[in-house]
Amino acid sequence: MSSAMLSQAQTEEFLAFAGSLAETARGVILPYFRADHGLENKAARGFDPVTLADRAAEEALRARIEETYPEHGIIGEEYAEKPSRSGFSWVLDPIDGTRAFISGLPLWGVLIALSYEGKPLIGIMDQPYLGERFRGFPGGADLHTRDGVRPLKVRACEKLTDASISTTDVKLFTPAEAAGFEQVRAAAKLARYGCDCYAYCMVALGTLDAVIESGLKAWDIQALVPILEGAGGSVTDWRGRPSYDGGQVIASGDPRVRDEALVALRRAAA
Amino acid sequence: MSSAMLSQAQTEEFLAFAGSLAETARGVILPYFRADHGLENKAARGFDPVTLADRAAEEALRARIEETYPEHGIIGEEYAEKPSRSGFSWVLDPIDGTRAFISGLPLWGVLIALSYEGKPLIGIMDQPYLGERFRGFPGGADLHTRDGVRPLKVRACEKLTDASISTTDVKLFTPAEAAGFEQVRAAAKLARYGCDCYAYCMVALGTLDAVIESGLKAWDIQALVPILEGAGGSVTDWRGRPSYDGGQVIASGDPRVRDEALVALRRAAA
Repeated sequence: MSSAMLSQAQTEEFLAFAGSLAETARGVILPYFRADHGLENKAARGFDPVTLADRAAEEALRARIEETYPEHGIIGEEYAEKPSRSGFSWVLDPIDGTRAFISGLPLWGVLIALSYEGKPLIGIMDQPYLGERFRGFPGGADLHTRDGVRPLKVRACEKLTDASISTTDVKLFTPAEAAGFEQVRAAAKLARYGCDCYAYCMVALGTLDAVIESGLKAWDIQALVPILEGAGGSVTDWRGRPSYDGGQVIASGDPRVRDEALVALRRAAA
Repeated sequence: MSSAMLSQAQTEEFLAFAGSLAETARGVILPYFRADHGLENKAARGFDPVTLADRAAEEALRARIEETYPEHGIIGEEYAEKPSRSGFSWVLDPIDGTRAFISGLPLWGVLIALSYEGKPLIGIMDQPYLGERFRGFPGGADLHTRDGVRPLKVRACEKLTDASISTTDVKLFTPAEAAGFEQVRAAAKLARYGCDCYAYCMVALGTLDAVIESGLKAWDIQALVPILEGAGGSVTDWRGRPSYDGGQVIASGDPRVRDEALVALRRAAA
């Protein structure tokens, strides 16, 4: 089954349900933003933050999915995978960008994807504090704000020296990956940091040209794939292959920028 | 004249006028955000972006100040300094974070300060897309949002290993500065990047503990000093001295974090 096989009625039904999940997450998460959020460290070594907001939101989303689509699987950051009995799975990151969240910065997002046999068909990145919702679906992508709705469309960018790129934190790269990224950054016009899922949506909006990251999980990227693809962009691994499961990722608008960046990233490609 | 010598009536008058300047800037700048903004490169080498929005906003603010307070000086990023005939000067950065602005990211801000003989007394950081206005004044600081007003207060943080820190871009440091920053970052719990003026306001809000930067201009920092000081924090240079003119800056909440960071930064201090 390809994405073209989601009927128009199914697309509308699932998009509406995904939107209602974003509303649920918003209600759970916003009261914790810039307030006591019960921070814990998940990591045995280092710092891998999780908050009451992450866990409460994922619990609420799982309960709603299990009630409405009991045959659907659920893959989320905070709890164990529920296998699918229908091919469909919901892939959830209740707060992508927990570091931004606990720092009071509004560039975190709620990521909700619906995939079929591993391929994401519908994706939402919801930023409840900003009142922004980026949506991707078969055939398109749009942005809902307090002011209305606009279609999402990547911009043309002929070459890397004209490109604005982003990564969340260069410290997340291995040394070889960091060397590859640094080569891309040195060539690019501008680099931005610390934006997590928000940067991918800026590529879809046509205000950035590429995001380069590694070590991602499926729930970090699945919701963003339909948004990028619906806006005319792409999400691939560092060898240029379609990438839905995380790892090394480059999200890009104009394929010319991606192909130039991939030359620099190739030596570090998994 | 110290800040205590601004009468209550003067404080209220100047704060209200500064707020009205932020409204003026908002009206000029927002139509350019995520739209055609006439990007130019100011730098002979490298990339130092300026947009129609920066220039049009500073022109509008200057015209209003000259009309209302002809004896006041004006120091702004985009145009020549107007000397003060009264000791008072307005210090303006119409868009602090132009790189964020042109990337579609909402973490830029309009910076407006009123200084007396070089010392900032009143400061505003306005983020028109978010509808947030951070204000600092003699005796306090507050945050106005779509939901209301709250006082700003830095948080306690006993030691650097518990601290969340931020800098806009490590590439802006000299090698010696970068080494000092890296030592602080390695000790800190968490680091965020790319936030320009917004990070300073997160220290005032009590969601970050310190911002460390260098190469700042007076208009990058003057508006933030009253916000930090009004919230119980501080802005100093890398030797711990009060800093109003830019250069190397550390903005902090708890002085224990600042003093620990200054040990690491000392070797690179100007």
